[in-house]
Amino acid sequence: MPDPKVMEAAVHAYVDAFDRKDPAAVAALFAPDATVEDPIGSPPHVGHDAILAFYTASMQTGAKLQLDGPVRLTADYAAFAFSVHLHWEGSDKRVDVIDIFKFNDAGQVTEMKAYFGPTNFHGFS
Amino acid sequence: MPDPKVMEAAVHAYVDAFDRKDPAAVAALFAPDATVEDPIGSPPHVGHDAILAFYTASMQTGAKLQLDGPVRLTADYAAFAFSVHLHWEGSDKRVDVIDIFKFNDAGQVTEMKAYFGPTNFHGFS
Repeated sequence: MPDPKVMEAAVHAYVDAFDRKDPAAVAALFAPDATVEDPIGSPPHVGHDAILAFYTASMQTGAKLQLDGPVRLTADYAAFAFSVHLHWEGSDKRVDVIDIFKFNDAGQVTEMKAYFGPTNFHGFS
Repeated sequence: MPDPKVMEAAVHAYVDAFDRKDPAAVAALFAPDATVEDPIGSPPHVGHDAILAFYTASMQTGAKLQLDGPVRLTADYAAFAFSVHLHWEGSDKRVDVIDIFKFNDAGQVTEMKAYFGPTNFHGFS
């Protein structure tokens, strides 16, 4: 099983790298064959190249992430609530999200699912 | 797809019924063949009778639930962070949890997964 400390550190590294606009550092947290389903129900991004492209595009919005409470850690999952903050078209906007990361024994993320929808968008008109 | 208002109301009804120690009201939120995996990785409780028995036992701890931030709603999932508060063996204890509920078109919960582990227990010695 992955070390809980490694999983928790990966979540913080994810937030920090996102805020630095460093998509390579985010992609490096994932296993080579990982899947990213963001939001859940959308076609997944599969594998390192697709994940890197997805985060590169996401970071171009200038979004910043803010953790919302403690990271929940099971044997091989991290679950965490956060908000995404954007300044766009002259106003501050926020999206509330919960992510689930599944880890392999090497401490790499193998599966990411993001939970949010229309009711979680604030300041978009 | 279930109505987001129905999914959000189900989460609040779950918290309220738990705090009232009303396991039948919690079990009534679930589809007859639903599964409850609490925590994720443990053997699931399958079907109404098993779910009722699980919540009946859970509520005997006197635990109270407190939502921690907004409910995240996708097309057919609700994700929510909360804390469980217990007074046990002379002291206050807390467990931080994230639950994922999957809904059917009738607005019943078909699948529940709870994410928490040893690092999320506070005040237990």
